[in-house]
Amino acid sequence: MGKETLQKIAEVRERLRQLQRQQTASNNGTASAPPAPVIDPPPARPKIAEMSAEVVDSNPYSRLMALKRMGIVKDYEKIREKTLIVVGVGGVGSVVAEMLTRCAVGKLILFDYDKVELANMNRLFYQPHQSGLSKVEASRDTLLHINPDVEIEVHNINITTINNFKLFVDRIRHGSLSNGQVDLVLSCVDNFEARMTVNTACNEENQIWIESGVSENAVSGHIQYIEPGKTACFSCLPPLVVASNIDEKTLKKEGVCAASLPTTMAIVAGFLVQNSLKYLLHFGTVSNYVGYNALADFFPTQEILPNPQCDDRFCRQRQSEYREAQASKPKEEPVVEEEPAIVHEENDWGIELVATDEDLPAASNSNATTANAGLKFAYDAPAANGTDESAPSDAPPAKAIDLSSLQAQLKGL
Amino acid sequence: MGKETLQKIAEVRERLRQLQRQQTASNNGTASAPPAPVIDPPPARPKIAEMSAEVVDSNPYSRLMALKRMGIVKDYEKIREKTLIVVGVGGVGSVVAEMLTRCAVGKLILFDYDKVELANMNRLFYQPHQSGLSKVEASRDTLLHINPDVEIEVHNINITTINNFKLFVDRIRHGSLSNGQVDLVLSCVDNFEARMTVNTACNEENQIWIESGVSENAVSGHIQYIEPGKTACFSCLPPLVVASNIDEKTLKKEGVCAASLPTTMAIVAGFLVQNSLKYLLHFGTVSNYVGYNALADFFPTQEILPNPQCDDRFCRQRQSEYREAQASKPKEEPVVEEEPAIVHEENDWGIELVATDEDLPAASNSNATTANAGLKFAYDAPAANGTDESAPSDAPPAKAIDLSSLQAQLKGL
Repeated sequence: MGKETLQKIAEVRERLRQLQRQQTASNNGTASAPPAPVIDPPPARPKIAEMSAEVVDSNPYSRLMALKRMGIVKDYEKIREKTLIVVGVGGVGSVVAEMLTRCAVGKLILFDYDKVELANMNRLFYQPHQSGLSKVEASRDTLLHINPDVEIEVHNINITTINNFKLFVDRIRHGSLSNGQVDLVLSCVDNFEARMTVNTACNEENQIWIESGVSENAVSGHIQYIEPGKTACFSCLPPLVVASNIDEKTLKKEGVCAASLPTTMAIVAGFLVQNSLKYLLHFGTVSNYVGYNALADFFPTQEILPNPQCDDRFCRQRQSEYREAQASKPKEEPVVEEEPAIVHEENDWGIELVATDEDLPAASNSNATTANAGLKFAYDAPAANGTDESAPSDAPPAKAIDLSSLQAQLKGL
Repeated sequence: MGKETLQKIAEVRERLRQLQRQQTASNNGTASAPPAPVIDPPPARPKIAEMSAEVVDSNPYSRLMALKRMGIVKDYEKIREKTLIVVGVGGVGSVVAEMLTRCAVGKLILFDYDKVELANMNRLFYQPHQSGLSKVEASRDTLLHINPDVEIEVHNINITTINNFKLFVDRIRHGSLSNGQVDLVLSCVDNFEARMTVNTACNEENQIWIESGVSENAVSGHIQYIEPGKTACFSCLPPLVVASNIDEKTLKKEGVCAASLPTTMAIVAGFLVQNSLKYLLHFGTVSNYVGYNALADFFPTQEILPNPQCDDRFCRQRQSEYREAQASKPKEEPVVEEEPAIVHEENDWGIELVATDEDLPAASNSNATTANAGLKFAYDAPAANGTDESAPSDAPPAKAIDLSSLQAQLKGL
C-alpha cells in the first residue's frame, strides 16, 4: 500500500475522531443516550478460492487445515460445503456465528428480530457502536469483515408467527449452498416458545438440530443434540436443565432482567460449535447432552431417548421410521457418525463420563432420581408412575428418561 | 446526534470504502499481502462513574448487577477495584481480556510481543484489518472501544529476558489501581519457558495465578489454579495435561504449525475467567484443575499438592509459610475463598466430580496411575519410586500427586 493511501487513511481516521468527539460532547456525558452506529471497517482481505494448509502468516486457514495433519479431521475443507441455520444471535448465538465464520463454514443463515443495545455489552461479539442496529444486520457486517469467504443470509424476523414459520421451514428445506436441505440447525434462543417452534419445524423436516440454553442466574447452561426419531425431541418430555431454584416466572416482571456472563455464554457456544464440527466433519463423539455448572465446574451428561407418546405427530412418525430402519439393519451400534470416524489415541479411552448416584450426593429435587445427578426438569412433573408397559420393545432402558406422563404439562404452557 | 453529523459519517464511510477498494485492487487479489491497519472505531460511549442495576437498554451493566439480585454475587461492583495481569493475548488471552473487559474489571495489564497476522483469524477477537499491529496495541484499541471504563496498560515485550522479567515483577508488585500488588495473574502463553517465568515471578511475589493451556492438536485444554505454598507450582512436577500423543518437538519445524480452533480456545478462556470471577468476587468453588477433552466432552479434574522438594526455593519458602499459618490456626478446611462465600442452592450439592479408577477404563500411559484418568504429565517421568519418606507430616495424601523424583527432568528442559 502506497504512502499516499496511508496518508489518506490517517486523514480519515482523524476526521472520524473529530466526529466522535463532537458526538460524545453532544451526548453530554450521560450513558442513557446510546450513540448511533459509527462505522464498520470494510472487508480487509479478498476472498480465497481454496483452503490451503500452507504455513505462512497471511494464510487464515493454516491452523484449521493443520487438523488434518494432526490426524483429527480427515477432510477439513468439507466445512465449506456446509450450511447451518442459527436461530437467535444473542449472547450465545452471535458467538456461535463468529466461531463458525472463523472456522470457514460455507454458509450461515441467521434469524433474530432483536436490536443491539448497550445492555448487551456484557457478552462477547457486539460492540457499542452497533447499538440500535438489528442484530442480524450487525452480525452480517462483522462476520463478512472477519471472513468474506462465508455466505451470510439474514432474516430479521420472529419465527414463531405463522408466515415466518413457513419461511423458516423453507430455509431448512432449501437453504443450503445447492438449494437443498441445510446440514444443521442451532437453537440459541432464550424462550420456550421459540424452542418449540424450532422443534416443530425440525420434526416436520426430519432435520437434526442442537438446542442450547443458559440459566437466568448466568451460572449454568447446556447443549442438547436432537435427531428426530432417535433422541428425545423438545416436546417428548420437559426440557432438562442444570439444577437451579430460579423460578422463570419471577423474572418476567417489569424492571427485572436475567443475569448473564460472557464466560458462561462463550462456554456454551463453544460446546455447541464443537459438537457441530464433530457432527459435520465426522470426528470424536457427538454428545447427546452436556451440562455446565459454573459454580462447581461440574459437567453432567445424559442420554435422552424419545417418548413413544410424544404429542408431536411428526416426532412419533420419525420414531417409527427410525425403528423400521434399525430393524432392517444388521445389529448396529447407535453412534452419531454416519461415516467412519477417524481413529486417534484420545478416542482409545472411549470415555463418556456419566454421573451416577453412587458418585454424587442425592439431589433434593423430586425429579432428580429420573435424571442424572445435577440435572432436573425445567418444570415440575407428577410423581413417577412406574414403567410404561405400552412402550415398544426398543423403548428406553431404565437409565434413560421416558416420562410420557409428563407430556400433558407441555400442553398447559 | 444531529442529521449533519450522520451525513458526515456517511461521507467518511463512503470515503473509507473507496480507499478500501483501491487498496484491494492494489493487493491484486492475492491473500499473501495482509492489508495494513485500516481503522478502529473510536470509543462509542462515555465513561460511567458508577455501576447501576437499573434495567434499561442503555445500561451496559444491568445484566452483571443482576447477579446480586439472583443471590450469586454479593458485591459485583467490587470488580471495578480489581487488577489482573494477562500474559499472552493470543487465542486464549485475547478472549480472556475481552471477557474481563465486558465484566467491567478495574484494570488490565497485558503482556505480549507478537503481531496480529491473518493466520490468527481462526480464533476469536482479532480482525483482519488489525494484521500487522502489535497484539497488545490492537487489544487495547478494541477493549477500550468495548468498555472505556476499564484501565488498560500494555507492554509489548517478552517477559523471559532479564530486564523484562524485572518489569514484569514490578507490575505484579505495583500494578494495581492503588499502585499495590495486583489481584491475579493469568497465564495464557503457549510455551514452557514463558510459563516457568510466570511461575518464578509469582513464587517470588507470593502471587496467586491461574495457568491455562491448549493442546497443539486443538482438541484439549486445561486451567490450573496456583497458590504459592498451598498448591503445586509449575515447577513442583511436570505439568499435567489432558492426554494426547502429540510430541511437542515434532511441531517446532519449519513449515509446520499447531492446529487451533476458536471453540477450544474460547472454552478454556471461559473456564479461566469464570474461575477468576469466582476467586475475585467470592462465589462458588474455585477449581484447582479443570481439563477439557473436546472429542469426548470429558472434563477431568485433579487436586495437585506442592512438592516439598521443589527446585524453586521461593516455592519451598511459601510451603513452609503455608504450613506455619495452617498450624497456628484452629482446624480449618483448605478452601480457596478467603471470605465466606454466599450460600445458594447449587452449592448444596457440594459436588466436585473427580474421576476415579473405578469409573473409567485404565489409561495406557505409564504415568496415568499417578494422575486421574484422562490426564497425563506433559513429559515422561521415571517409574514411581514409592512414598517420599522425607515429606513433612502434612504432605500430600496418596490421591494427590507428589513426585519429587520428577523434578530433575524440569532442569533438563
